[in-house]
Amino acid sequence: MGWAGVMENRVSAAEARQPSHPLSVPTVSESPRHDADKTCDGKAVGFVLVHAGAGYHSESKAKEYKQVCKRACQRAVEKLKAGAMAVEAVTAALVELEDSPFTNAGMGSNLNLLGEIECDASIMDGKSLHFGAVGALSGIKNPVMVANRLLQEAQKGKLSAGRIPPCFLVGRGAYHWAVHHGIPPCPSDKMATKFSLSAFKRNKRKMELAEKVETENKQTKKRRQSTGNQENDSGSLDTVGAIVVDREGNVAAAVSSGGLAMKHPGRVGQAAHYGCGCWAENAWNLNPYSTAVSTSGCGEHLIRTVLARECSAAMQSEDAHQALLETMQNKFISSPFLASEDCVLGGVIVLRCCKCVESRPPQDIQALLVEFLWSHTTESMCVGYMSAQDGKAKTHISRLPPGAVAGQSLAIEGGVCRLGSPVD
Amino acid sequence: MGWAGVMENRVSAAEARQPSHPLSVPTVSESPRHDADKTCDGKAVGFVLVHAGAGYHSESKAKEYKQVCKRACQRAVEKLKAGAMAVEAVTAALVELEDSPFTNAGMGSNLNLLGEIECDASIMDGKSLHFGAVGALSGIKNPVMVANRLLQEAQKGKLSAGRIPPCFLVGRGAYHWAVHHGIPPCPSDKMATKFSLSAFKRNKRKMELAEKVETENKQTKKRRQSTGNQENDSGSLDTVGAIVVDREGNVAAAVSSGGLAMKHPGRVGQAAHYGCGCWAENAWNLNPYSTAVSTSGCGEHLIRTVLARECSAAMQSEDAHQALLETMQNKFISSPFLASEDCVLGGVIVLRCCKCVESRPPQDIQALLVEFLWSHTTESMCVGYMSAQDGKAKTHISRLPPGAVAGQSLAIEGGVCRLGSPVD
Repeated sequence: MGWAGVMENRVSAAEARQPSHPLSVPTVSESPRHDADKTCDGKAVGFVLVHAGAGYHSESKAKEYKQVCKRACQRAVEKLKAGAMAVEAVTAALVELEDSPFTNAGMGSNLNLLGEIECDASIMDGKSLHFGAVGALSGIKNPVMVANRLLQEAQKGKLSAGRIPPCFLVGRGAYHWAVHHGIPPCPSDKMATKFSLSAFKRNKRKMELAEKVETENKQTKKRRQSTGNQENDSGSLDTVGAIVVDREGNVAAAVSSGGLAMKHPGRVGQAAHYGCGCWAENAWNLNPYSTAVSTSGCGEHLIRTVLARECSAAMQSEDAHQALLETMQNKFISSPFLASEDCVLGGVIVLRCCKCVESRPPQDIQALLVEFLWSHTTESMCVGYMSAQDGKAKTHISRLPPGAVAGQSLAIEGGVCRLGSPVD
Repeated sequence: MGWAGVMENRVSAAEARQPSHPLSVPTVSESPRHDADKTCDGKAVGFVLVHAGAGYHSESKAKEYKQVCKRACQRAVEKLKAGAMAVEAVTAALVELEDSPFTNAGMGSNLNLLGEIECDASIMDGKSLHFGAVGALSGIKNPVMVANRLLQEAQKGKLSAGRIPPCFLVGRGAYHWAVHHGIPPCPSDKMATKFSLSAFKRNKRKMELAEKVETENKQTKKRRQSTGNQENDSGSLDTVGAIVVDREGNVAAAVSSGGLAMKHPGRVGQAAHYGCGCWAENAWNLNPYSTAVSTSGCGEHLIRTVLARECSAAMQSEDAHQALLETMQNKFISSPFLASEDCVLGGVIVLRCCKCVESRPPQDIQALLVEFLWSHTTESMCVGYMSAQDGKAKTHISRLPPGAVAGQSLAIEGGVCRLGSPVD
């Protein structure tokens, strides 16, 4: 099969405006709509977009974050080139992201209050619409592999005696299920890194200090108000995720997270939550576009707004860019579900694709048009993307415009990729 | 405050029609639309609707199921009369439902593969839109109390050092959090009942037999197909739930479940899942109605269709009855997310309410109009409801019409309750 690909890139200069009311009209950093500063051709059998989290990415570590995104894209594209379907390619990207000690997923995850690692992950297949998720899972290096295996097992149908296979397992039960299904265990201490251990010690001191101040304030009836600011360590929100389109136009999405730093043991965030961490849905009669979404940020905010599913639904609108902008403004930053929050933290990567036939004499071209976007209310978000005809992935750290307030403002950027093959 | 209440009851003769295609046009058992066979007056400070599960309720145990629904309604109404808000009243109803050895929640829950009890529960407050949930929780008699406490703690704002309080805890972490917050532990063996233990033994034998047959079939390549029928023990889907409106028109919803019989340890079902187990949302500028929903049935089916949230959204339509019917048909039984399932099992209780002022000389009446419905695709569903002016609750076991196939057909019934007080 001969493929021709065209990539238009809309990642470019930001336009910022100051809000009159920071919550309802946030500062927006938007890319121009119809910029095309890059095109390329070649063999194209799919597309992948990954994120290494919405949070704060220091300039000093920018290179590391970009490198891991690049490798994750390459892993997915290798799978796609070998004929894998979207769900297999997205898993490969996630394994690479989890294996990096710099991301808050798998290896190097944030430690909880007791200094343990407990991971959340989920995956969704847009073709079968099946979903697999694990929560508060310890002792497994790649949580996404367990989520993927749950999805695969569920697709096989019922268990013995007509029992319905689980789509979501947590804690020790999830661990034993994984090991029983041949996924190798990994001692928790091998998953902690120098960086995560020192962040834990720093956070613990900070917490003890804050609790001392709080106890004093309690005596003067100032409880809680004084501690409402963001004090999480940089990197603590760096959940990872990926979304993929394969050669048949199937989509898949996945997400993996070590959760908030110093979380309570047993706390499960959006990465394990259906509709909140990831979403993938192939086109069907009522939905002209296939859509895929992966989120990152504060789990509780992403859960209560069911953000992945909301973004996916919005992607059926005519203008994907405008629809995502409105969703992030109205259903996230200004959501009535988060009215009590002064700082709404999150980011998403989204794509939509549709099939079309283009007349390009001497032959018709059957094209897959992929529109992809990312948006975040956090200081920054690190993304990478690649189509199967690209030699290497493009990476980018998107940042809020200068002066914009994290949690009240947003940035939005994206691009378009056309994957085409001659019609026989 | 003087209240006057009027109750119209639409629980009445069923109308059944045979489907041409059982999945797209299911057999429907519907109540007539504008029946009013009962009115009553008195002091009315709220309304409660409870369910003791969608599953199969044998005639022999019908009395027990109805009794526990009755008591649960009474507990909620006692709280409402004492001035409690909806979220407190709904918790009281759930505690009563969990304490019954006949329901699959709290005491008497289904045992998992290892013979352990692991419970899921969640609660949502329509006023604050906060949510609390626990999953795979062992050793606590009333899981809903932990969910409620998580909700209450989250409403107090951030934890020390700006940490975001959890809304969802699982497993051992959830247990320790509960005990730390003063909720007493309960030895797991005290939560098992003679009934749940004998059902476990029966299910285990059935499973071993099925696995033996499956192993034989595997040798003849018939794996899985032969075990696709429903063989869960009766009562195994009897998740419980409740929805409440208080005197101010606030709504709340809760749900609690022991999960599927013989589930894998660590499996979490819809009862702990945001948007799937329960939903409560007070009216706000875009939504004229306050809505509350609680679900029951096969957790995986209810998760993948996000059924509670879907039903809530549908309740903003003009005709609540028609909207629920269409939601159960199009977004549950015929959902593309469950296309591979031959048998879609679930039930919901829903209510919506709005405030209105009626002119009734010599004075105006400020009324709260509550429309309530239940619908299920399971053989039966046991419900109870009561307004605060009623001396006792009404209970009902709704059944599919004769000949209707569970998992492919549905029943829908409901009523209207008007709670009024003179305008000063």
